[in-house]
Amino acid sequence: MNLETISWQKNKIKIIDQSKLPFKLEYLYIRDIVTLYRAIRRMCIRGAPALGAAAGLGVYLGIKDFRGNNLEDFKRKVKEISHYISSSRPTARNLFWGIERVNSVILKNRSKDISNLKELIFWEALSIIKEDKKSCDRIGRYGSVFIQNNDGVLTICNAGLLATCGLGTALNVLYQAKKEGKNFKVYASETRPLLQGSRLTAWELKKNRMDFNIICDNTAGFLMQQEKVNCVIAGADRIAGNGDTANKIGTYNLAVLSRHHKIPFYIAAPFSTVDLSIKGGDGILIEERNPDEITTLLFKRKIAPNGLKVTNPAFDVTEHKLITAIITDRGIIRPPFNKNLMKISC
Amino acid sequence: MNLETISWQKNKIKIIDQSKLPFKLEYLYIRDIVTLYRAIRRMCIRGAPALGAAAGLGVYLGIKDFRGNNLEDFKRKVKEISHYISSSRPTARNLFWGIERVNSVILKNRSKDISNLKELIFWEALSIIKEDKKSCDRIGRYGSVFIQNNDGVLTICNAGLLATCGLGTALNVLYQAKKEGKNFKVYASETRPLLQGSRLTAWELKKNRMDFNIICDNTAGFLMQQEKVNCVIAGADRIAGNGDTANKIGTYNLAVLSRHHKIPFYIAAPFSTVDLSIKGGDGILIEERNPDEITTLLFKRKIAPNGLKVTNPAFDVTEHKLITAIITDRGIIRPPFNKNLMKISC
Repeated sequence: MNLETISWQKNKIKIIDQSKLPFKLEYLYIRDIVTLYRAIRRMCIRGAPALGAAAGLGVYLGIKDFRGNNLEDFKRKVKEISHYISSSRPTARNLFWGIERVNSVILKNRSKDISNLKELIFWEALSIIKEDKKSCDRIGRYGSVFIQNNDGVLTICNAGLLATCGLGTALNVLYQAKKEGKNFKVYASETRPLLQGSRLTAWELKKNRMDFNIICDNTAGFLMQQEKVNCVIAGADRIAGNGDTANKIGTYNLAVLSRHHKIPFYIAAPFSTVDLSIKGGDGILIEERNPDEITTLLFKRKIAPNGLKVTNPAFDVTEHKLITAIITDRGIIRPPFNKNLMKISC
Repeated sequence: MNLETISWQKNKIKIIDQSKLPFKLEYLYIRDIVTLYRAIRRMCIRGAPALGAAAGLGVYLGIKDFRGNNLEDFKRKVKEISHYISSSRPTARNLFWGIERVNSVILKNRSKDISNLKELIFWEALSIIKEDKKSCDRIGRYGSVFIQNNDGVLTICNAGLLATCGLGTALNVLYQAKKEGKNFKVYASETRPLLQGSRLTAWELKKNRMDFNIICDNTAGFLMQQEKVNCVIAGADRIAGNGDTANKIGTYNLAVLSRHHKIPFYIAAPFSTVDLSIKGGDGILIEERNPDEITTLLFKRKIAPNGLKVTNPAFDVTEHKLITAIITDRGIIRPPFNKNLMKISC
């Protein structure tokens, strides 16, 4: 499958419009940062690593047509754009990391002029994409040791090619295991409210001819009780210094269920998702999203009475104690996570 | 609110068509058992206690126009109809219990003629409805002691007036607590796949002016982690002799999450839901339902790619060890359930 979730084409950011999947494979060509902001908010592009790339390219998109020779004005503009893009969604670490990376170009190249800086920002943004592809490959190869023949593997949301610039994090562990000739069954939890599991993960697992069933999120405990699940692998939006991990709402339920059933629970994410500035999960800001995601199925069909109060957090935090290992592009991290994450950060 | 989920009117079974809620309050008038069978399969009527009443009235509906004087033929007909109705759905104990109750009329009245037996079956079916109303009241009064001021109470699926002949089981505990002047917050889990939480529970909680929020099922762990949930109350479809309880898929997830967070987990059900002939949850038959419930939202909007494999059990079993107490119409049952359920059965 040769699909690119995000790329730079003809002076525009080209993304797969994930709000149209699984029924239409349509691309959005984004030529300004307001459109990018909306595409991120509406989750036409989502997944922490893909958001890192979108943020990097977004900063370039915002400054590429900057006119003028005043370096301070230019820097102010970069800051302003960075602030704007980073206000699109609060939880995914990579979004901020992508912005920080392209901003660091300016810090590192104080003597360069505006046109040089633009070019350097551009190359930095592209290198985020290239590196993420490699990160996905490494995560896949490191993580595949955890998959055995005849396993049942449960995953939530979409941590596949649609969430990254490469073949995925959690899902690439599965793709890699399949390449290595292992036979196993995947259970894809549909992932309410926005159904990234049954819409996106099912779409790419099908394209990759994986053996999988979809379930509603309520069925996870049932499957574990029936001993059909040998491990759970999920992606991550932000990993705190102690290993506490924010990921799609419902991930924490799976972690608790895994612990109860003595099933290993893995997180797969590039190191760029790790936020060592935050000690524990308490410090992670959880996005509260539109109630309509719950009361109106995919914003099209009303399902609940009018005027209800809704609690709709987009993410939850899984305490590090419930995580067996974190599969990163720098290797497999085991507890104690605070010590071991710090070690590989150097 | 003076609504009857099921009643007998003008020689027909009158039910609220729950497939139309929350948008239309429409009634179905059922004059034959094939229509009844379909209404049960399609979940126009659902909820274990309501199904008990539907089964009892259904047997009467099937034999009320029986012609002939041969008692053996009549008994064979009753058996045939009972078998047919009981094949509509396999898990809810009350469906079978309702059928057994009206059948017991024949066993107890061997000397009566067909026209007498018809009448006795009719009165037995009506008494199921009357008794269930009282059961709901008792469950509400017994259970309300568990609700405290400022509590957050999480419930799943619909165990309210729409699931019973009275005001409900789990939800009537909440209605009763409110009558007693307690202030608390209800969290209604939407309950995929058929959304009985956001469609039905939300509808009746709103009518009863309860303070509630709806959440998607994935948010339960998050709320518990945030210490917003003080107890969970769910209904039941079948309770085995040891207290293992089958209820809507996802109930088991909540029980495990409750245990992890040291939150009490209550089951509320009339004693007619208890099946002492089954020792433990292993013996409870779990209905596997149509994959379209997962891949097509409320059978109207396709959400997943075509041709997927789906695992769609309608229920799960919560082990008795995870249940704090069972609130029945005969009082509150505490562990050891096998001993205490047996005790109150006499």
